[in-house]
Amino acid sequence: MDVHEALYTTRMMRRMHEDPIPLEAQARILDAAIRAPNGGNTQRWHFLAVDDPKTKAQLAEVYRLCRAREYADIAAGGLAKPAHDPVAHAETMRKIKDSGDYFTEHFTDIPLLLFVFAIDDHGGANIYPAIWSALLAARAEGIGGVITTVLRYEAEQVMELLEVPVEAGWNMTAMLALGYPRGRWGVAANRRPVQEVSSRNRWGQDFGVTVDEPLWNGVPEN
Amino acid sequence: MDVHEALYTTRMMRRMHEDPIPLEAQARILDAAIRAPNGGNTQRWHFLAVDDPKTKAQLAEVYRLCRAREYADIAAGGLAKPAHDPVAHAETMRKIKDSGDYFTEHFTDIPLLLFVFAIDDHGGANIYPAIWSALLAARAEGIGGVITTVLRYEAEQVMELLEVPVEAGWNMTAMLALGYPRGRWGVAANRRPVQEVSSRNRWGQDFGVTVDEPLWNGVPEN
Repeated sequence: MDVHEALYTTRMMRRMHEDPIPLEAQARILDAAIRAPNGGNTQRWHFLAVDDPKTKAQLAEVYRLCRAREYADIAAGGLAKPAHDPVAHAETMRKIKDSGDYFTEHFTDIPLLLFVFAIDDHGGANIYPAIWSALLAARAEGIGGVITTVLRYEAEQVMELLEVPVEAGWNMTAMLALGYPRGRWGVAANRRPVQEVSSRNRWGQDFGVTVDEPLWNGVPEN
Repeated sequence: MDVHEALYTTRMMRRMHEDPIPLEAQARILDAAIRAPNGGNTQRWHFLAVDDPKTKAQLAEVYRLCRAREYADIAAGGLAKPAHDPVAHAETMRKIKDSGDYFTEHFTDIPLLLFVFAIDDHGGANIYPAIWSALLAARAEGIGGVITTVLRYEAEQVMELLEVPVEAGWNMTAMLALGYPRGRWGVAANRRPVQEVSSRNRWGQDFGVTVDEPLWNGVPEN
């Protein structure tokens, strides 16, 4: 797959089939992920794959609890507000909530949960390139998923369940849910164009070039 | 370019030519970046391109100061230590320092500095996918670079210089330095293999598959 297709069409997929992900595909996903840059090449990362039904069921309970707490925070205004069109944002949030409800209800059907741990992730710089590489490599296999950090509300409980050696400094950065998607791949839409989110030399000065349409507009594979 | 080639060969490039990056290529890099996932699709990001010589010269002075502070922190043991082979790590650090010295001395020759700002980057989850997408899209153009966070030591000074509206909540996440590299592209080496950095169902349990060689081993383009 062309790199632009991967970059443009790897959207978050919360509805997926129960079919398992072959071990070889899992290996390809992680082998791509570990090529990502990380400060000083210390590679202080660890990837824990969960596919055991009993463990997934235990995590599903924790996930449900965490998600309720997240929504309480959103309702209290403690989380991100949109920087632009509030009507479009409300619609986006409704869609995300709907697919998030589906995701929560079908948590135990997700074929693979991939927990990502790091020691000193340096504000995300040392770990999110690897996480995003994993999702892009998954995309090339026709595998979709979502990055979620909501389990961090109960990180201690999750790490105890997974027997993470927290005394060594490991922290849970995120969980990826991976599976073959029910939805269709497509170019990430509803993006403010480049010229609205960029400047040149000083904040607010014209970037100097305008992009009217997504610069990749092929027909997505898989 | 195939997505795997991009994922496997986009290594950090600190030695680059002075040739400018065409505006159209800059637009392609940012148009790919803004497709990245971000929480609630709020897109609270801003990309500020710096190519003005006088501004670069001012930033070079700040960069030199920040790097000295970073090395003082490293010497004081305040920054990351390796989780594995200390000899290989020392060699890696020596190479990084050498190319970092070169980078510092040639800062004003870097054709494009791309500052990335975010409001509430959610531990990096909302901004590093876009940053990594920018570098992967650059790779497809034969453009290399490096992610650096070292200017955060003097974030206030940098943001004042660039006239960033900090009162609106904007923070500097990182700076990308971009240019046509002097070095050669190659598969990111010295990585611990998948089976050493992964587990299944419980920390320390066998991941279930072994990867002996990088799973992409083509000849890099550009």
